[in-house]
Amino acid sequence: MGKRNLYLKTIPVKEAQEQYMQALLDIVVSKTEVIPAEDSLGRMTAKAVYARCCSPLFNAAAMDGIAVTAKQTQGASQENPLTLTKGVDFQIVDTGDPVRPPYDAVIMAEDLLETDEEHVQILEAVSGWQHVRPIGEDIVAGEMLIPGGHKIRPIDIGVLISGGILKVEVAKKPKIGLIPTGTEIIEPDKEPKEGDIIESNSRMFAAMTVNYGGIPRRYSPVVDDYEKIKAAIKRALDENDIVVVNAGSSAGTEDYTVHILREMGEVLVHGVAIKPGKPVILSIVEGKPVIGLPGYPVSAYIDFENFVRPVMDLMSGERHLSGHTVKAVLSKRLVSSLKHQEYVRVKVGKVGDKLIASPLARGAGAAMSLVRADGFCIIGQNCEGVEAGETVEVELYRSLDEIEHTVVSIGSHDLILDFLADLMPLSYTGSFLSSTHVGSMAGLMALKRGETHIAPTHLLDEETGIYNISYLKRLFPEQEMALIKGVKRIQGIIVQKGNPKGIQGIEDLRRVTYVNRQRGAGTRVLLDYLLKTAGICPEEIDGYEKEAATHMAVAAMVKSGGADAGMGVYSAAHAMDLDFIPVGEEEYDFAIRKETLKLEEIRQFLHVLKSDEFRKKAEAAGGYDLAHTGEIVEL
Amino acid sequence: MGKRNLYLKTIPVKEAQEQYMQALLDIVVSKTEVIPAEDSLGRMTAKAVYARCCSPLFNAAAMDGIAVTAKQTQGASQENPLTLTKGVDFQIVDTGDPVRPPYDAVIMAEDLLETDEEHVQILEAVSGWQHVRPIGEDIVAGEMLIPGGHKIRPIDIGVLISGGILKVEVAKKPKIGLIPTGTEIIEPDKEPKEGDIIESNSRMFAAMTVNYGGIPRRYSPVVDDYEKIKAAIKRALDENDIVVVNAGSSAGTEDYTVHILREMGEVLVHGVAIKPGKPVILSIVEGKPVIGLPGYPVSAYIDFENFVRPVMDLMSGERHLSGHTVKAVLSKRLVSSLKHQEYVRVKVGKVGDKLIASPLARGAGAAMSLVRADGFCIIGQNCEGVEAGETVEVELYRSLDEIEHTVVSIGSHDLILDFLADLMPLSYTGSFLSSTHVGSMAGLMALKRGETHIAPTHLLDEETGIYNISYLKRLFPEQEMALIKGVKRIQGIIVQKGNPKGIQGIEDLRRVTYVNRQRGAGTRVLLDYLLKTAGICPEEIDGYEKEAATHMAVAAMVKSGGADAGMGVYSAAHAMDLDFIPVGEEEYDFAIRKETLKLEEIRQFLHVLKSDEFRKKAEAAGGYDLAHTGEIVEL
Repeated sequence: MGKRNLYLKTIPVKEAQEQYMQALLDIVVSKTEVIPAEDSLGRMTAKAVYARCCSPLFNAAAMDGIAVTAKQTQGASQENPLTLTKGVDFQIVDTGDPVRPPYDAVIMAEDLLETDEEHVQILEAVSGWQHVRPIGEDIVAGEMLIPGGHKIRPIDIGVLISGGILKVEVAKKPKIGLIPTGTEIIEPDKEPKEGDIIESNSRMFAAMTVNYGGIPRRYSPVVDDYEKIKAAIKRALDENDIVVVNAGSSAGTEDYTVHILREMGEVLVHGVAIKPGKPVILSIVEGKPVIGLPGYPVSAYIDFENFVRPVMDLMSGERHLSGHTVKAVLSKRLVSSLKHQEYVRVKVGKVGDKLIASPLARGAGAAMSLVRADGFCIIGQNCEGVEAGETVEVELYRSLDEIEHTVVSIGSHDLILDFLADLMPLSYTGSFLSSTHVGSMAGLMALKRGETHIAPTHLLDEETGIYNISYLKRLFPEQEMALIKGVKRIQGIIVQKGNPKGIQGIEDLRRVTYVNRQRGAGTRVLLDYLLKTAGICPEEIDGYEKEAATHMAVAAMVKSGGADAGMGVYSAAHAMDLDFIPVGEEEYDFAIRKETLKLEEIRQFLHVLKSDEFRKKAEAAGGYDLAHTGEIVEL
Repeated sequence: MGKRNLYLKTIPVKEAQEQYMQALLDIVVSKTEVIPAEDSLGRMTAKAVYARCCSPLFNAAAMDGIAVTAKQTQGASQENPLTLTKGVDFQIVDTGDPVRPPYDAVIMAEDLLETDEEHVQILEAVSGWQHVRPIGEDIVAGEMLIPGGHKIRPIDIGVLISGGILKVEVAKKPKIGLIPTGTEIIEPDKEPKEGDIIESNSRMFAAMTVNYGGIPRRYSPVVDDYEKIKAAIKRALDENDIVVVNAGSSAGTEDYTVHILREMGEVLVHGVAIKPGKPVILSIVEGKPVIGLPGYPVSAYIDFENFVRPVMDLMSGERHLSGHTVKAVLSKRLVSSLKHQEYVRVKVGKVGDKLIASPLARGAGAAMSLVRADGFCIIGQNCEGVEAGETVEVELYRSLDEIEHTVVSIGSHDLILDFLADLMPLSYTGSFLSSTHVGSMAGLMALKRGETHIAPTHLLDEETGIYNISYLKRLFPEQEMALIKGVKRIQGIIVQKGNPKGIQGIEDLRRVTYVNRQRGAGTRVLLDYLLKTAGICPEEIDGYEKEAATHMAVAAMVKSGGADAGMGVYSAAHAMDLDFIPVGEEEYDFAIRKETLKLEEIRQFLHVLKSDEFRKKAEAAGGYDLAHTGEIVEL
C-alpha cells in the first residue's frame, strides 16, 4: 500500500482564520475601479462620496399654488381679504418650480379665492419661506452622501445622482478560480458509470461567490495527477485573485494538493478542528490565497463559508455577516467531541411561541440535509454536547418570516409528504411544509413535547387491528387530540424487477438479504408483527440490522443490489421501477392537538390535502386509497 | 388659472393593495422558462424538481482503507489477528470508491496492521455496511429535491446537479418599464440650470427592480405633453410586463397621467391614505399593470415598495417579505394624522441593551433621510401618534448586526462628523458612526435618556467662559461623566463671496437678511449671547425666524442668495466657497457617560479621532485647532 499521511494535525477554527487573515493582510492589496453610479448596486464604496450639487438646486415651491412676497401679505384676514395681481404680486407655481426673489413664500392653490384670471384673494397672511423647499434642503453640495466601505443600495443610487455624482469608486469584485480535481469526477452532462461522481461543488461555489460579491471562474475537472493539478493551479493564479482547489485536500494516497502547494508556495494551515470540514488547506502562492477544500459537499460548503468568504470580504471591504442568529429549543440530544467545532444542520419550526431546532443527518456527504435545513447549530470545540430541551443558538439561513409560516411535520415518512410540501407554497405563496422523518413513534413523542404541529403516523394496535387512535389515547391521556385522516396505503415487500429470488411472502425473507427500517418506524413495527405471527425470529433475517431511513432509501438499496428485499410502500417500488409483493393495507394519518387545528397554516395544509392537485399526484404514484383523506376525527 | 382636481380621494393602503391584486390575479399569467440549473441562483422554481439519479450512485467507501466482506472478519481480535490477502479477501479503496459485492464493509487504513504489500492484519471483526455510504444515502432517484415556489440557493444548485438535473423550470423575471416624465426633468449627464431637476428616480427604481428579481428598462424622460406621454406608455406596454410612470400622478395642472390611463384602460385607485406617497395611480391597461408614482423620491420609494413590488411578486411567485421587524423605544414624540398611514424614517441605535429609534426628517423630498435611516416606523391610519419612550415596531432595512456595531451620536452638527463616519468603517470593517443633528442641548437630553452613546456639544457658560463642562455637571448631577475633547473651531458670519454687503460684525446683521439655526443649537446660543452683549434684540434681525438645521444648510442658503448672512463654522463657508468673518473660537466636544468609554466601538471611535487620516481631513477643511483632540476629561 502507498504512503499515507494518516494523521492530519488540526488547529481551532478561530486560530486558523486569524493566522491566515494576518498573513493575507500584508499581501492583499484592495483594488478599486470607477464605475457609473447607476450600475453600482450592491458594490462597496472605496471612499466617501461627497455631493457635487445641492438638491433642490434652487429655492423651490413645495406645493402647487402661487409664489408671493411674505411681507406683502401682512394684514390679510377673513374680514380684510387682500387682492393680489398676477405678474406683479404673485406668480403661479407648481410643486418643484423655482421661487425667485422677490418672492419668498408659497400659498397653496386651495387657500386662494379666485376673482378672475389675473387676480386672487387671500384671507390670511403668510410667513416667509412657507411651503418653500430651500436650496440644499435635501442635499447640500459638499456634504457626505455615503461613507467609504458602504454597500450601495437603490436609495443611495438615487441620492448620488441627485447630488450630481455620475461615477463612483468601488472595490473591485474579487475573481475566484474554482478547480475541481479527482479522476472519478465527471462533468454533469456526461452519463455517469459506477465509480463516477458528478461534479457539482464548483457550481455551488460559483453561486456562493456570486452571492458574496465575487466573480467566479470554473475550470474543467483535473484528474489526480501531480503535474496536471500544478499546471491548473498556475493558470488559475494568473487569471484570478483567489484560487480554490477541490478536493484532494486530505492526506490520502491521491491527495496531492498539499504537496503541490508546499512546492509552489507556503501552506499555513492543513487541518482545522471543524466538523464537517476538517481537511482544509490554507496557503499563499505567488502572493495570492490558494485554498484547498474537501470533496464532501457539506464539508465544502462549511469550509467555503469559514475560509473563502472572509478572504473575499478582505478584498472587497465587505463585512462577513454571520447569518441571522436566533435562540431555539433543541428537540434531540446532541453529542459532540472536544476535538472539533461542529456544525449541526437543524430544521427550525415555530410551534406555539417556541422556536424548535431539530437536528438533521450529520454526515459530511449529506448535501440534502443542507437543502432541508433552516440553519446551523454550532457546537463549540470545548463542549461535549447539548441536552434535549436546552436552548441553543441557531444561525439561520432561511428567514424567520418563512419559518413562522411553515407547518412542521415530524414523524413517519411517506412520499405524499413531498407532494404536500411541493403544493403548499404553490397554493399559498409564502407558506411551507417542513417534514422530518424519524418514524411514527418518535413523531408522536415530538408532538407530546410541543415540537411539531403534526405527526404523521401509522401504528397498528395489534389487539384491535385499529390504526393510530389507541396510541394517541395512551400517549395524550389529558389532552384534546385529533387525527387528520391521511391515506390508506399498501405495504409490501419491495424486490428486484422480475422478482428473481421468487419471494412470495414473509417466510421467504429467511433465504435472502434484507434491508430494514429504523427502530420506531411503523413499517418496522409491521415487519416485527408479521415475523411474530409467522413464528420467525429476527436473527433469521440476514440484514435485519441494516437500516434505511425512508421508503425510498429501502427501494434504492434493493435497486442497487445491496439487498434482495425490503419492506415499504407501493409508491416507492413504483418510483424506482421495482416489483412489489403486497402484505397489507394500513392507515397513514396526521396526529395533531385539537387547538392546533385553528392555525391559519393548518387550514391551508388541510385545503391542499383535499385538493385535486394532491389527489392527482397521489393517484399517479399509486398504492393509495384517498376515500377519507382530509377528514378530521376528534378523540 | 387652469383647472385642478384639487382633492384626491384616498383609500386605506391595505384596501388599495387588495383591490389591485384581486383585479390582477385574473389577468396576470405567470410565465416560466427552462434554464440551466447552474445559472439558476436566486430564481423561483415553477414546480417541484425530482432527482433523476441517486447520490451516491453506488455503494461507496466512506473512508480510505480496504473493502472486505463483513462475515469473513468474524473472530478477529487482539489475541487472534486475522490476515487478509489482497485481491482475494480485500481491495484497497479511497473515500468515494465503489464497494462491490462480495465486499460489504470498509476498514479504515489506520486500523490495519500492514504485514507486506499483499497482506494486512486486522484485530477486530466488523459489521456489514460499516464505513459504506449506501447508494442513495444522500439523494434517492425520484425524491423531491426542491419544491415549487422555492428561491434557488447555492446548495440547491449543488443537489440539483448531483441529482442529475441540468435544467430547471423557473418563473420568468418580470420586465418593468420605467418612464420618467416632466418638462423640468433632465438626464444626469446634462448641466442643470435653475428650475431643472436631475432625473434620479428611474435609476433608483431600476436598482429596486434588480433587487426584487425583475428586469428594468429605463426610458428617456418625456415632457409634460398628453400625447407624448401616451405614446411612451404604449411603447413601454409592448416591451414590458409592468409599466411605471413617474411622476405626474397627482391632480395638478400638468398631471396628465391619470387622464391618459383612464383613456387607455381602467384606473382602479387614484390616491392612497399613505404619507408620504398619497398620489399613487393603480391601473390596468391592455391587460397589464400600469402604476403612476409621485415624483418626490421618498414618496416614490415607499410607493414602489407598497404597490410595484407586490405586483412583481405576483408574477414571480416570490413572497413579499417585509423587512426584518424589531421593537425599539421611540426617542421623540411622533404626531400623525388619522388621514393616512405614515412611514417615518428612523435611525436605530443600540445603547446599552435598548434599541432606540430616532425619527428623521419627514418631508417627502428628503431623500437623504432615507439614506441616513435604518428603517421605517409605520404609524397606522387609526393612530394619532406615539409618545416618546413608547415601544414601536421598526421595519429595518439595515442589519441588526451592523446596528449593534454602530456608535450613536446625537447632538450638534459639525463637518468632522462626516469625516469620522467615513473613516470608521474603513478603519474597522463593520463598525459605523451614525449621527443625528438636533443641536447641542437636545443631544445632551438624549444622552440623559440613554438614547445615544455620545453627544457632540459646544455650549458656552456665559459666566465662566468655559465650554460644555458646567452643562454636563448641571444635567448629570449623579452620574460619572466624561468629555472626549473634539476640536476648537472658529465660528463666524458666513457671507457672499467678496462680502458685497460689507458685513464687519454682529451689528451689521441689522441691515441684511439673515438665516438662523434651530432652537437649542450651540451656534444659535452663541448668536443670542453676541446679540445680547451688543444690545441688539432679535426682532431687529430680518430672518431670525428662518431656521436651517446644519452649518452646511446655512452656507447653502447664503450661496443661493436666500439670505445675505448666517452664522456657522469656517469649514462650511470654505466648502461652499463663501467669505467668512470670524467672531470667536469655541470648543466642540463629545459628552459621554464614563462607563460607555469601555465599549469596543468607542475605543475604535477614539482611535479614528486621533488618527492621521482624520487630522489631514480636518486640516484640509480648515478652521480647526486639533491640539487636544481625543483627550479625555473625566468630570
